[in-house]
Order: sequence, then C-alpha cells, then structure tokens
Amino acid sequence: MPTPLKTAVVGVTGYAGFELTRLLLRHPRVGPPTLFHRAGEGEETKQLSDLFPQVSGNGSHAVEAFSWSQVRPENVDLLFLATPHEVSREWVPEAVRRGVRVIDLSGAWRLQQAEHRAAYAFQDTDPAAAERLTDQAVYGLPELNRKRLRKAQLVANPGCYATSIILALAPLLQGGLVELAHGVICDAKSGVSGAGKQPSATTHFVEVADNLSAYSVFRHRHVGEILEQLQLSAEQLVFVPHLLPIPRGILSTLYLRLRTVASAAQVEACLRDFYRESPWVRVFSPPQLPQIQFSLRTNFCDLGFCLADDGRRLVLISCLDNLGKGAAGQAVQNMNVMYGWNEQEGLA
Amino acid sequence: MPTPLKTAVVGVTGYAGFELTRLLLRHPRVGPPTLFHRAGEGEETKQLSDLFPQVSGNGSHAVEAFSWSQVRPENVDLLFLATPHEVSREWVPEAVRRGVRVIDLSGAWRLQQAEHRAAYAFQDTDPAAAERLTDQAVYGLPELNRKRLRKAQLVANPGCYATSIILALAPLLQGGLVELAHGVICDAKSGVSGAGKQPSATTHFVEVADNLSAYSVFRHRHVGEILEQLQLSAEQLVFVPHLLPIPRGILSTLYLRLRTVASAAQVEACLRDFYRESPWVRVFSPPQLPQIQFSLRTNFCDLGFCLADDGRRLVLISCLDNLGKGAAGQAVQNMNVMYGWNEQEGLA
Amino acid sequence: MPTPLKTAVVGVTGYAGFELTRLLLRHPRVGPPTLFHRAGEGEETKQLSDLFPQVSGNGSHAVEAFSWSQVRPENVDLLFLATPHEVSREWVPEAVRRGVRVIDLSGAWRLQQAEHRAAYAFQDTDPAAAERLTDQAVYGLPELNRKRLRKAQLVANPGCYATSIILALAPLLQGGLVELAHGVICDAKSGVSGAGKQPSATTHFVEVADNLSAYSVFRHRHVGEILEQLQLSAEQLVFVPHLLPIPRGILSTLYLRLRTVASAAQVEACLRDFYRESPWVRVFSPPQLPQIQFSLRTNFCDLGFCLADDGRRLVLISCLDNLGKGAAGQAVQNMNVMYGWNEQEGLA
Amino acid sequence: MPTPLKTAVVGVTGYAGFELTRLLLRHPRVGPPTLFHRAGEGEETKQLSDLFPQVSGNGSHAVEAFSWSQVRPENVDLLFLATPHEVSREWVPEAVRRGVRVIDLSGAWRLQQAEHRAAYAFQDTDPAAAERLTDQAVYGLPELNRKRLRKAQLVANPGCYATSIILALAPLLQGGLVELAHGVICDAKSGVSGAGKQPSATTHFVEVADNLSAYSVFRHRHVGEILEQLQLSAEQLVFVPHLLPIPRGILSTLYLRLRTVASAAQVEACLRDFYRESPWVRVFSPPQLPQIQFSLRTNFCDLGFCLADDGRRLVLISCLDNLGKGAAGQAVQNMNVMYGWNEQEGLA
Repeated sequence: MPTPLKTAVVGVTGYAGFELTRLLLRHPRVGPPTLFHRAGEGEETKQLSDLFPQVSGNGSHAVEAFSWSQVRPENVDLLFLATPHEVSREWVPEAVRRGVRVIDLSGAWRLQQAEHRAAYAFQDTDPAAAERLTDQAVYGLPELNRKRLRKAQLVANPGCYATSIILALAPLLQGGLVELAHGVICDAKSGVSGAGKQPSATTHFVEVADNLSAYSVFRHRHVGEILEQLQLSAEQLVFVPHLLPIPRGILSTLYLRLRTVASAAQVEACLRDFYRESPWVRVFSPPQLPQIQFSLRTNFCDLGFCLADDGRRLVLISCLDNLGKGAAGQAVQNMNVMYGWNEQEGLA
Repeated sequence: MPTPLKTAVVGVTGYAGFELTRLLLRHPRVGPPTLFHRAGEGEETKQLSDLFPQVSGNGSHAVEAFSWSQVRPENVDLLFLATPHEVSREWVPEAVRRGVRVIDLSGAWRLQQAEHRAAYAFQDTDPAAAERLTDQAVYGLPELNRKRLRKAQLVANPGCYATSIILALAPLLQGGLVELAHGVICDAKSGVSGAGKQPSATTHFVEVADNLSAYSVFRHRHVGEILEQLQLSAEQLVFVPHLLPIPRGILSTLYLRLRTVASAAQVEACLRDFYRESPWVRVFSPPQLPQIQFSLRTNFCDLGFCLADDGRRLVLISCLDNLGKGAAGQAVQNMNVMYGWNEQEGLA
Repeated sequence: MPTPLKTAVVGVTGYAGFELTRLLLRHPRVGPPTLFHRAGEGEETKQLSDLFPQVSGNGSHAVEAFSWSQVRPENVDLLFLATPHEVSREWVPEAVRRGVRVIDLSGAWRLQQAEHRAAYAFQDTDPAAAERLTDQAVYGLPELNRKRLRKAQLVANPGCYATSIILALAPLLQGGLVELAHGVICDAKSGVSGAGKQPSATTHFVEVADNLSAYSVFRHRHVGEILEQLQLSAEQLVFVPHLLPIPRGILSTLYLRLRTVASAAQVEACLRDFYRESPWVRVFSPPQLPQIQFSLRTNFCDLGFCLADDGRRLVLISCLDNLGKGAAGQAVQNMNVMYGWNEQEGLA
Repeated sequence: MPTPLKTAVVGVTGYAGFELTRLLLRHPRVGPPTLFHRAGEGEETKQLSDLFPQVSGNGSHAVEAFSWSQVRPENVDLLFLATPHEVSREWVPEAVRRGVRVIDLSGAWRLQQAEHRAAYAFQDTDPAAAERLTDQAVYGLPELNRKRLRKAQLVANPGCYATSIILALAPLLQGGLVELAHGVICDAKSGVSGAGKQPSATTHFVEVADNLSAYSVFRHRHVGEILEQLQLSAEQLVFVPHLLPIPRGILSTLYLRLRTVASAAQVEACLRDFYRESPWVRVFSPPQLPQIQFSLRTNFCDLGFCLADDGRRLVLISCLDNLGKGAAGQAVQNMNVMYGWNEQEGLA
C-alpha cells in the first residue's frame, strides 16, 4: 500500500469545495485532506458536520482558517483551491513557489490569451510572474490534455459550461467535420449551484422557480476557454447561457453544420473514437439523447446528437453535473491523471 | 361616480408591496396610487416597469423615494406600509398625526399584549404615544373585526400564518366545540415569498429546492397574534412552521380535540355559519380538502376538515396565498371594509 | 349594451380548455359559455367547481357531455374546440355546416400544405370537404392575419411554440434583414402543461423535476406552422424543443444572421414598428431580456434581443405563457378580432 | 474472500427496485444480482442501461421477465420483491416453499393483526398458509428487531412513512416518557417517488409543482404498521400524510406530551441511548433540526426535537429518504443483518 497523498482544500464552504471534500474523503489513495474555509469566513475552526449536517455521523473533520504555515511540501502534496478567481490569482504563485502542486477550480489560470483574460480584469502584484505561471498552467480537461497533465505543477480546472461544450465539439472539430465559416451555436442551460453559494437576487428561490432566463449573452467568461481550447475565433461561436430552476446540472444544445454530407453512423463513430480511452464521456446512440438527470451526481459528460435528413445540420446535446464533471469530479479526475492513477479512482 | 380614493404605498419593491400595487392599480374605486420604494433604496425615481418588467405595457407609474411632504390629507387618504416592522413602528405615529388613515402590513401594530410584543423588541422614541396607538389599532381580519375596521384610523394587517390559523380555528373556538385543555397543534407550511425578498442563505434556491425544513419551533412571531385573536394561552397552542420549496402559498394542518362527540355535518355547519357573510372564506365539504394550488393568486382562505371515526379528533386544513389573503389581498379587503365598499371590490 | 356573445367550449377539462373557460367567464362581451367536457369523459353533467375546486365560490357552471343538439346558431355563435386534433378534424366540418363560427385550439386546421399535414396523418371521412375547409381556415395569429380573421368562419388557433417563434421572426423576415441562406436556429423550452393533462411517463413529477431534456428534434409538429407562416423552407429552420421543470411558460432562443451589418437601434425599431398596433407584443430594449416569469398568466408575447459586436449575429428571446398567448388567451384575442372588439377586451 | 451472496430482484423497473439494484451492484459481499422486471411488463429481456440510461457505462446487466425456474436455492439465496402487494402476497409463499429467503418491500407481510390487514383486502388462495407465513414474517426495522432478523426466512421491509415515525417515537415510548392518553400527532410530508412510478393524475408534474396537499387523512395504510410496532391503539395516533413537490425525501413532524416535566438533555439522552448501536440513525442536538436534504441519497434516519419551555410539549422531527432508509437502503441493511455482516456494508 503506497503512502496516501497529502491534500488540502481551500474553500470547503462553497458548493464545489464541499463536493470536492466529499470525494477526497472517500478516495482510496488520498489521506484525510486538510480543510480550510475561505478568507473572510473568520478565524474559527469548525467541524465539517456543523457546516454540512448531511455528513454528520461520518467522523470528525476540522475546517480551519487558511494559513500558509500549513501549506508546505511536508504537509501538502496537492492543494485544491475552490476560491474566487481574485484569491486564486494571488495565492497560486505562492503555493507554486513553495513547491506544492495546485489544482485551481476558479477561472484565474485557464486563459492563455490576454484578450480573453480581459474579462477578468486581473490585478497582479507581480505581472511577470503571473505571465510565467500562465504559460506553465495546464487546462485540466483530461480528455484533451491528458499527457501534459501528468507533469503539471498548476492545473486550471475548467469551467462547467466550457467542459460541456468543449467535450461535445472537440471530436468533430479535430476530425475536420465542421463547417467553421458557418459558426457554432451553443445554447446552454445550467442549474443554480453554478452561480455559487453567495445569496443574491438572481439566486433567490422566488426569482428562479417557475422561471427561465438567458444571461450574459455574447459575454460570458467561459467563452474564452472554449475558444482557446477549440482554437476558434470569437466570430465562430455564439454562446448563450440560461438559468434553470434546478439545483444542479447542465444541458448544452449545440448547433453546427457539417462540411460535407455525413451519416449518423459517421458522426457517432467520430465521437466514439475520440473518447475510446476516456471512461468519463458517454456517447449515446440515436435516437437516445442525454438528459440532465442521467449524469447528476456522477463524473460523466454525456453526449448525444441528432442529424438532419440533409446530413449537414447537426444538433449535439451535452449533459453533465456542474459540480461533478463540471467542477469537483473533474478536479479529482485531474488529480488521478497527475499521479498516474486510474482515472476512475474514487469517482465510481 | 364618486371621487377615487387617494392612496400611497411604501415598500413597492418587496413581494407584498408589489402585489398590493398591482391590486390597487386595477381597483375601480382607487385612483393611481402614489408609489414609494423603501428607505435605504436610494433617492432615485424609477418606473414600476423597470423594477418589475412583468407590468410593462400597462402605463407609466413612477416609484419615488419616500417623502413626508407628500403624505398629507390633501394627497393621501390611506397609506399602506409594506415596510419592515421597525420602520412601521417609527412612521405610523407620524402618519396618524398627519390625519392619514394607515394599513400597516408589518408586525408593528398587531399585538396588544406586552409579553407578545417582546418578540419584536421595539425601540419606541415616544413609548406613551406608541402605547396609545397600540390601543387604537385594529387587527385587520375582516372576518373577525369587521365592525371595528370601519372606523379604524390604523389597521394592523395580520401575518400570513396567523390568518390561515385564526380563520380555521375561530369558528370552532367561538362555538365552544374545542377541548381547550387538550391544546391545539398547528403544523404550517409556507412558500418562500413569506420570507421576503432580501437574499439570504435560507432563501437561496439550492438550499430550498428538493428540501423541507421546520424552523422557529415554539417561537415564531406570529404566535402572539394567534393567541391574542383567539384568546388562548401560550400553553394551549403549538405552532411549527415549515419552509416549502414553492414560491407562494400556505397550508396549515391543525389538530384538535372536540369537547363532545360531533358529526362531520355539525363541524361543517359550524364553519359555514360562521362565514356565511364572508365572501373570502371557502368551506370545503368532506372528503374534499383544500390544496395550496386552489387559492393561489386569489384572496380566498380555503377551509376543509376530516373528523375521526370517534367524532372527537379533528384535523383542519387551511390554505391561502401568503401574498393574497395573507398580505396584499387582505390589505385591500380591509380598505374595502374601512370605506364601506363591497368586500370583493377589486379582488375578484 | 349589445347582446352578449353565445359561446361554447368543448374540452373544458384540459389545461387550455379550463384556462379558456376562466377567460370567457369574465369577458365583458360574452354570456355564460356552454361548457362541454371531452368525448370519452362520460355522459354525466358535473359542476365546474367539482372539476376545478379553485373556481368554487364563483357561481355554478354545469359541464355537460358534448351534444350536437346544443350546437346550433340559436344557441352558439362561436364554438371553441379544445380537443385532440383527431376530434377537431371530425367535428369542425359539422359545426361549420351548422353555421357556427369555430376557433379550434388543436393542430387540425393550421396547415395548408399537405407535406406538413403528413405529420398528423389525418383520416378524413370526406377529404374533399376537409380540403375546402383547409383553404378557408385562417391561422389565428392576429398580429399577422388580423384582417382575414375578421370574417373567418374557422380560425385555427396557433401552437404555443409556433406563436413564440413566429412573432419573434416575422418582423425581421418581412423587413428583409435576415440572411436566409444561413438558416435560423430555434432553441425552445417549454413548461409541462404544454404536454397536456394526460398522465404519462414524461409528465411524471419525478421524471421532470431536477431535469431538462430535448425531444422531437427536427420533427416536432409545430415546425410546419412556423415554415408556412414565415414562408421558409424546411432546410432554413432548425427547431429543438426542451421540457422544462416548470408548470407553464415558454422561452425560445432564436439565432440568426443579418444580411448586412445593423445596429441594435435598427433591430429594435424593426420590432417596434411591426408591433406598433399590437397591444399583446412587448418589445424589450437591450440589455433587458424577457424571462418566463414576466409573461406568466398574461396574454403577452415578450420579445428581446442581443446583437453581437459584429452587427450580424443576432440572438432573439421570445417568452409567453403557453396557456395564455400560446393557447387560451390567443383564442380570446382571436374572438375579439373576429367580432371587431378591442383586442385587449377581457384579457387585461 | 467468502462466496458472494446470490440475490435476485423482482421489480427493477420501479423506483425502489432500481435504487435497490444500484445498491446491490456495488455491495462488496453480493454477486451480480439476477434482475427481473415486473409481471405485465412483457417477456423481453432488456439491458438495465436501456431502462435507466444513467447507469450506462457501468457494464451490462440483463433484466429478464420473472420466471420461477430461476428462483431455486442453487441460484438465489435471497430474493427481493419490489412488487405490488398483491403480487408479493401471491409469490412469497412459493419462494419460501422453495427454500429461498425473502425481503419483501411491499405492504403484503408487514401486519400481524387482521384488523390492520383489512386495509389491503388481501385475496389469499391458501389463507392458512398465508396466516402461518404472517406469523413467521419479521418486520424489517433493524433498530427494533435486529435479533429476530438474523434468522428470518421472510422479512417485511417497512413502509417509508412508518419507518420515519416509528424510529422517532420508539425510544420515548419504550422509555415510558410519553403521556399516551394525550395521543400522538404525526404530520408527515413525502416526495412524489413515494407514490410510485405509475403515471397518474396525482403524480402529474403540473398537479404537484407549486402545490401541497394532504391525503388519506386517518386512513393511510401505514397506520397499521405504526400501531403494531409501537403497540398503540388507533385512538392514540393521528397520521396525516402530505404530498410535497420534491422527487424524494420524507419529513415527519411529531407532536406529543411527556408524562412528566423533562429537560432537553433528558430527551436527547433517551434518543441517543436507544440508538447507541445503530449506525443509521443520527440524533441532532438542539437547536439543530434535520432537514430533508441532509439524508437524501443516504440510509440515515435523522432525528431532532424541540421541547417547549414547560418541559412537557415535545416536537420531534424525523427525516429520511423514502427510497433509502424508507425502502431500498433499509432492505440492504436488513440483508446485512440477516447474514451477520456489518450494518453499514454497501451503504456508506
């Protein structure tokens, strides 16, 4: 039995941080994680079961105020940051300097191109260092970047929308099937936990229930990730997110045109071939389509499609759990890849 | 055609204030109400349709910052306060001094007995004046206090839970049918708008959806109203509210024991007789029971019941819309009574 | 005061039929409608308030088994059919023969082109008569067909999805702004009442809640209506409906490319000009977008949009209540037009 | 490594049957279960992942039509029946005759007293055999009947409501704390999966959403179980179930009077002592109360309480997942007890 990995999580009190904590607590290759709440949540040490009564009866787990004194290679092999991007932008350089590997769940290190980073308006104290770290960061989508992840010091865990869209489009784009000039439409719908735990007018039950609304049309921050990973230009993508009256889950409906007439069998083969070695992507055969319920509380991204009679117009459906494959599950999958373990370890 | 009534509403931006505004805007005997937002919401004048896009296309209605200069008998016959109880406690004395009639939707003036008011911890600047006004205030439940309402200067609009419980119990208590020594159990369930529009951890969609929780057991502020109106002692009532994953509506399930064996027909007659002149209470005949959907977006309080075979154990079900009969609808009904109009005016 | 219109409704027990009944009961120019339940629901006469306890306390309204003996010009000026399309296909010819005007809420008479009707596989007993009636039927979208509706004997009330999509696209298409060769994408999301009241696996609460699913991709029956009314070819439109976990409401997100670069002001002007005389379409100014909640329980169709920086890629949002403007409200609006009344009569 | 247990499940297609199947598939001491759909669901063999796409990607599991030829001690050690009670009533005697142990999830074998069984109106072909089997059956609530379960041939898995209520009341009743003459009120609220998967008017999304309703007041079938297990008379219990607009979860609010004045510490001690050896009951300390979300998708029953200032009036809150501890989870726990395994095996 090898030594268990020493991990720490900052931001246990958020939705993604808590989900991650639950996964780490039952991961067979990971020791009990050091748990931190977020900056601004006080100095007090609390019990995880006081913060989340649903885990009471499963042992005692202290959640402490974050302290650098505990983040040293002797204590922590791998640090997970489930923190706002401003915090991640500030803390990651220090963690890396201390020789700790990092998986950051925020948008702080996902973007290579300055034009896309503009959406975040980062205020770096050491811009040169930040630039170097940006170059070094690996976008944590194992299905695309598996090899680079193995040696990564800093992994930028993808956005939930971005994961659902990139995984649906990558096979067809890389296979050269898509008529790029026509553009790709991404109509995405997400549950409310994607908006975080901070109470606000837009997450108030009465505003969300019995409702549906589009938001951030043409200007959602995840667009940059999608463009960079798929090597598309801004003109080639339209992305419209919608807020669903459900707690979790994303369904993205993608519309594109194929370069030449294809059969459903060819499209399915393209998807299946691409994900042959990827246990966390499920391809559905027509006419079956993914639904949000199918991937809830799993690390799966489910893909399905419908091809028009003309063999050109293609509708792709991509579903995942925004806290699973869209955040915490993917972070664990990234850890599995970084340490050379089976990708399904601790996630089945 | 008589002169339309001049009304003003403070707190248009809250759930009850907005509902009230909609009702007043279409009330045949009321002129265009003067609309104020709440203290602390800025000095800017806004359009109602900018605050609530659902009413756009229905004319222009300015919502201004509150100003005493507009609250004079020349401008305002009747002032509705949909404000926090601290604000109502402070503003009502001034409005009354100015000779304006007031319907206050908060808990500020509902309680006659000091022990019940303790739950609110009022900080009155002029305690003697507050005491006098308390004596003068009429509890705005028309089905019980119709006569006194006609001349009331200050009407304290009842709490939503209290309305549903008092209306269910009053007929049986006044009829002497209830074994008081046995006590009465009130298990109430409310939609989230009852908690107000202010975002908080308890109104976050993810915390409310797929959930049910009890809260404020034995110590909800509405208990005082119920006890006073029904002339019960604290020991005779158990009240447990629960938060339902729905936007609006209350269902109260009430458990009591009859003093002597009765038939279902007798119970039904007791309820029907009591509400013979009350158009806003509907009594259902067994085995039909009210459901929350039946009274949504109406001013009805629906009552139904089920009597055990022993003729002693009685279960009452009371449903209403917490923003209708539980707040704004009832305020309009109170206005109708205060001005001698048909109680259904503007509410059908 | 003119003589009230004599109306009858078949299919009061369904969601649209009940909504229509409620509207007719309060319409100032309509007498008490004759109410029929559907074929197959027994011979018994019931009270409306027994079928729908929410309307108890509002007088007595008998709901009878349908009988032709009551459908004669002496009794009925206007017959509403809220029946399955097979029933409408059979009954409308007989009603027209009897000299009664008809508004049919099903898909039976909406389609002029045989290729689109194929989706319904009608089995007409007298195909020639059906063909004549098809030619005569007017598609009941007042915003497009106001003039022809005035004299219509048979009005085919549009589908809910079709209404939301046609109203959004018509102004831009008629204005020649749309690059048709690029095609139009319609990503629509509907509440469950759109699927009807018949219980089924797809309307079971547990299957719908916490879920979202796409269905009938490329082959929903409403496609034909949209194509005919907008004079598009099948290749120019992609329509993907989704089932939302809400009781009612539709939001359609439409994606298209403009023929030439335009400004947001030009797009807004195009929409506003088109609907200048149409009180039931509201155009929102950017950046405000319609949400499902805004039009719930109204007869409004709300339109909003977002134009990309390139001035070419346009996203339109269209919201309505599938039982309001998408069914019963629109039927009443059609009646208003047919009889030369104000279009808002009975709907405000 | 001991030989894995050979199990079979009948009724995999229902909510409880599917939940049970998922638990058995990952139970470390159980081999791949033989899976049967229900009588009346055809003769065809299907794949579990075709019936439930959410489990695709987890291997191949055939679901066959039930056949007695496969239910012999060589093939099946333990048979789970997730079937309607009529089917269970007929099949269990045959299974027992074949020497197979049985856990039946229906209400067929839970009741010892004929007066309580009357609610089911069983039609036994061999009444004497049924009577013998009734005597032999063990009510499968491990916390109460652990010892008898170890040797049970037939385990009657409790009802979901009954489990939540019995577990809350048993400690206080056995401790002699409850004033029985006063009676006990059980106000219970359940998610819709408790009503089963068969579509009906009462499970239609539009009827359940935004609603709450009481049903089967005084006459729900689970009353008999509660009375028998707690040795109460019908007059001592009032049970009112309500249908919640959520997919799963039960919260029961119980009202009772203590025989003598007690402290909260005494009540808590009574509960904690009783469940000291029971890993699947969690007792919350005041003022914390259980909520439905806390026990969702677990096998926990969560208990909390609130004692009035008078030390006599007690409110108990009991939460569980109706498909977990209320059905499938409890069935697995019963299996664990029957075979002498750790009660948490396969459930953590």
